[in-house]
Amino acid sequence: MTVHHFAPKHYYTAIGLYDPALTIDPGDTVITTTVDAHGRDASAQQITPSGNPMTGPFYVRGAEPGDTLVVRIDAITPNRSYGWSGTMLAANVVDPSYVPKLPWPEPGTRRLGDWHVDAVAGTATLTAPESALGRLALPIRPMIGCFGVAAAEGQAISTATSAEHGGNMDYRGFVAGVTVYFPVFAPGALFFLGDGHALQGAGEIAGTGIEISCTMQFTVDVQKGRRIGWPRGETADTIFTVGNARPLDQALQHATTEMVRWLQTEYGWDPIGAQTLMGQVVEYEVGNVFDPAFTMVCKMEKRWLGSREQ
Amino acid sequence: MTVHHFAPKHYYTAIGLYDPALTIDPGDTVITTTVDAHGRDASAQQITPSGNPMTGPFYVRGAEPGDTLVVRIDAITPNRSYGWSGTMLAANVVDPSYVPKLPWPEPGTRRLGDWHVDAVAGTATLTAPESALGRLALPIRPMIGCFGVAAAEGQAISTATSAEHGGNMDYRGFVAGVTVYFPVFAPGALFFLGDGHALQGAGEIAGTGIEISCTMQFTVDVQKGRRIGWPRGETADTIFTVGNARPLDQALQHATTEMVRWLQTEYGWDPIGAQTLMGQVVEYEVGNVFDPAFTMVCKMEKRWLGSREQ
Amino acid sequence: MTVHHFAPKHYYTAIGLYDPALTIDPGDTVITTTVDAHGRDASAQQITPSGNPMTGPFYVRGAEPGDTLVVRIDAITPNRSYGWSGTMLAANVVDPSYVPKLPWPEPGTRRLGDWHVDAVAGTATLTAPESALGRLALPIRPMIGCFGVAAAEGQAISTATSAEHGGNMDYRGFVAGVTVYFPVFAPGALFFLGDGHALQGAGEIAGTGIEISCTMQFTVDVQKGRRIGWPRGETADTIFTVGNARPLDQALQHATTEMVRWLQTEYGWDPIGAQTLMGQVVEYEVGNVFDPAFTMVCKMEKRWLGSREQ
Amino acid sequence: MTVHHFAPKHYYTAIGLYDPALTIDPGDTVITTTVDAHGRDASAQQITPSGNPMTGPFYVRGAEPGDTLVVRIDAITPNRSYGWSGTMLAANVVDPSYVPKLPWPEPGTRRLGDWHVDAVAGTATLTAPESALGRLALPIRPMIGCFGVAAAEGQAISTATSAEHGGNMDYRGFVAGVTVYFPVFAPGALFFLGDGHALQGAGEIAGTGIEISCTMQFTVDVQKGRRIGWPRGETADTIFTVGNARPLDQALQHATTEMVRWLQTEYGWDPIGAQTLMGQVVEYEVGNVFDPAFTMVCKMEKRWLGSREQ
Repeated sequence: MTVHHFAPKHYYTAIGLYDPALTIDPGDTVITTTVDAHGRDASAQQITPSGNPMTGPFYVRGAEPGDTLVVRIDAITPNRSYGWSGTMLAANVVDPSYVPKLPWPEPGTRRLGDWHVDAVAGTATLTAPESALGRLALPIRPMIGCFGVAAAEGQAISTATSAEHGGNMDYRGFVAGVTVYFPVFAPGALFFLGDGHALQGAGEIAGTGIEISCTMQFTVDVQKGRRIGWPRGETADTIFTVGNARPLDQALQHATTEMVRWLQTEYGWDPIGAQTLMGQVVEYEVGNVFDPAFTMVCKMEKRWLGSREQ
Repeated sequence: MTVHHFAPKHYYTAIGLYDPALTIDPGDTVITTTVDAHGRDASAQQITPSGNPMTGPFYVRGAEPGDTLVVRIDAITPNRSYGWSGTMLAANVVDPSYVPKLPWPEPGTRRLGDWHVDAVAGTATLTAPESALGRLALPIRPMIGCFGVAAAEGQAISTATSAEHGGNMDYRGFVAGVTVYFPVFAPGALFFLGDGHALQGAGEIAGTGIEISCTMQFTVDVQKGRRIGWPRGETADTIFTVGNARPLDQALQHATTEMVRWLQTEYGWDPIGAQTLMGQVVEYEVGNVFDPAFTMVCKMEKRWLGSREQ
Repeated sequence: MTVHHFAPKHYYTAIGLYDPALTIDPGDTVITTTVDAHGRDASAQQITPSGNPMTGPFYVRGAEPGDTLVVRIDAITPNRSYGWSGTMLAANVVDPSYVPKLPWPEPGTRRLGDWHVDAVAGTATLTAPESALGRLALPIRPMIGCFGVAAAEGQAISTATSAEHGGNMDYRGFVAGVTVYFPVFAPGALFFLGDGHALQGAGEIAGTGIEISCTMQFTVDVQKGRRIGWPRGETADTIFTVGNARPLDQALQHATTEMVRWLQTEYGWDPIGAQTLMGQVVEYEVGNVFDPAFTMVCKMEKRWLGSREQ
Repeated sequence: MTVHHFAPKHYYTAIGLYDPALTIDPGDTVITTTVDAHGRDASAQQITPSGNPMTGPFYVRGAEPGDTLVVRIDAITPNRSYGWSGTMLAANVVDPSYVPKLPWPEPGTRRLGDWHVDAVAGTATLTAPESALGRLALPIRPMIGCFGVAAAEGQAISTATSAEHGGNMDYRGFVAGVTVYFPVFAPGALFFLGDGHALQGAGEIAGTGIEISCTMQFTVDVQKGRRIGWPRGETADTIFTVGNARPLDQALQHATTEMVRWLQTEYGWDPIGAQTLMGQVVEYEVGNVFDPAFTMVCKMEKRWLGSREQ
């Protein structure tokens, strides 16, 4: 039950079998920092190349392939006031014929929005581009854009994308208080995290959230022999499953299949019961529709999961 | 501002240029009944062939191509206690390799769930198949599965599917209190409605909601010269747009494009402002992922729409 | 075995239950004309509204739902020298990020290519836009872009799209000499045809072929009680099946499923044998990836179909 | 212009930044062997774990990121007589509702077809499962299922899938005589190859070709400063581009975009000319629709590429 204060020295833009940055035990808590998607730290200095650089990997003692790594997100706190975001919808989220009507920046330039993030007040205020929008102020909801564990077969998977191992899911539901489950593919699991967003709409349709460096705190555990297929999660009131793939239809298939497996293997439902229930109460949330793999979340309220015993 | 009590005599399983069943004026309210998806009425008697039979069409005086038809859903009340639902996930919503593991009924049979719906208490209780599930009771949330207007160019579009004209969208957000906007393609708009569900999860992933005949009340209006591309809707707190297509990615493109157009043409946003905002606050809901065309809803809270004036 | 010379008086931009233009018998041959996709005839005069206007419908005596209509394409001959085509790739066939780089014409204009078609010499020569391309000359291969039969349940399906009934498949393999099979959904089948192309690449990726009015000759037959799911076809050396849907993956699923059914129900293959063979010899051709429904063709050489008897 | 006879000692199931197995020069030829997809060699002994094990990597002197690696496939010769294949269509290539009708083997078993491959006679004969199919004999057409170069950013990409770097494309057109171009992402390019198929139908719809170990010969070259986006290829009569993604629509977008870039940047076409031509003459071939990323090939005959100078 140690609390580790970990200052990262190296960052990775792929999730793979890299040397552990810190070895921890089940039950341990880690407090660390993450740079933003461009590799900029709490001083807004770029200290590592761009592309969702990850803090980690954290080697969790006892985690073996076939187990489940539990990661409780304890806290996500922006550690600077400067955030930035995209200012144009991604070309792939609008009708192809509408793409030329998007507000493309001049060729060779990239136009970002600047946000002043007040983590104490809990607000993000757009400060540029200057426009009638100058006063746009939104409540923040800090989340983790990219986190996960080393994948199977020695793969090193770019932090641009996501798969069974997690990765760049950009799901706005990965906020403090949520418990996330990852399938373990490598000894020690090798957990990475980064890409904090002060706020993000569903789908990450402008290509970014409000990107920002953060202080993050998480607590790990290992569930021996619990074999899951895709990342799963749990809040006070809900359980959810995550599918990562293109197209969105396939991401939804993965999430839905993972949910029906969950209900049947761990909640004791028979197939007909589980599926009858799911048909009437399931919800879906779009993680991202921007990254190479899209993310779809299948969610259920816990209050129905014991329905059969009522 | 007349209130019409309309008893349908004929039902349609395609939405097209059929003779008006009733001619009404903007501002008028209609109270009518709908049969369930199998064509069964308040007595559970099958009075018309199966396949989402529609009540209507209602000819709205003054509606012309290029206008928008406004339909406020005033009330949706199940008018019998018997509801039915699918009891197995649709083959297309799970991983292809999982399809054989679904609880397929015996060849040639179809296994439905029977529900006792108490519209006053607001509950649906599963009465069959007999199982540990016998006591499954859920709060109802009556919605319209299929409604819309005659499409362009003389098409008669099956009520199995959906498109720009609306149709079988199976979106659980089409509940009483919502105002829906349809693009008008034919003189009088020719509005149809039916396919009531006492309850339905997102995606209609078991292939049905809790299907039931209903009494429905709606009020129409016409917005002259307001040209929209896809169905839109409005609740007390939100606005939303609806895209209908396969795959889900394309449905999302339609809904997102319709939303950005809406913000820019009717809410006064400039493109960069609208898209910066959408990127951080938009939400998506899955209508259905079962019908020939899938339905994706793009939703925003109204409180942000005037953000720029703060 | 009558040969009918039919001069169309009316054209349809939806395929549905319209009054027969001509009633014919199995074995009969029809020689008729088709206008181009814009409704222009052999004199290049627009005589009917744009949108793939169809000649027909032809009512085939004895055809009933559950039968198969056989259409042998005897001849497709451009009946004028003026053809036109798109000059830019469709926005949906390139990467979304490439869409702004396409050679978009000035807003409000449409830029077509003009072709001089010499049906005797068998060539199409680009005459405009003027450019280094002025001398581009290609051998023609006349094909039918859109043909099919009335669909089920009283639908009237736009000739912009395609489905089980055929329609706007834009498959370059529908040339003279090919025999096509359509499932019959309505008494008399109600066969329509039109949208001739002097030439077209796979996918119809510029949005058109070389569009032209034609004289077409076809011969019909009816196969009683042969129930097929999707259009099928046959050349001297091959059999093929056609799937129409979005995305292309689903069109491919339909075509592949129809082929495996065909091998098993009509060629006497057992499932393992049929599927082992298909895995090693099947070919796919893209019909169109431009219309609302895409078209994928699954093709096999006939020489393998009796392989098991060798 | 050295000819290297290389006997692999180690195999990789991911394509990444591994230590070079052999360093070669532009112009050099390599003759080597590949194991089959299960890791079995010329003696049918499993000598390395299953999963498309790769021979290599070959470090090509002078190749740097931003260059193009040229690989001419000189020869692919099965080096044993035993081949194996799938005997059931992949679940994802048929309609979801058809999946339960596939000939699933008993749970826990995998049913492969055995083929006797005679590389001299050029035939593959199915020897099991025993059935009326016993005599199925097909002409072989040896191809490379998986080959490519190290990807960008230190990724190690599973040989189950494919991307810009090539990989498991399973395109039946990768036969002897074809020249393939790969974008270089890492110093030395780091070229891998393996997964030979004696034969394979389009789409690899049974999940495999006729899998076999091979002797392969190839010759490399480096094109300095030629920056391409996706694998390209060339035969005596055609050029082609390869897109790897899901869904098939996106793979087609990549291939089409790469082709239009090619025509414009290297063949001197203007955008309108290139796209007008492509619309009428392009062909598509399906590589695979089975792997995590699908493969679509866009192909043009060389005779049209100089059309404008006629």
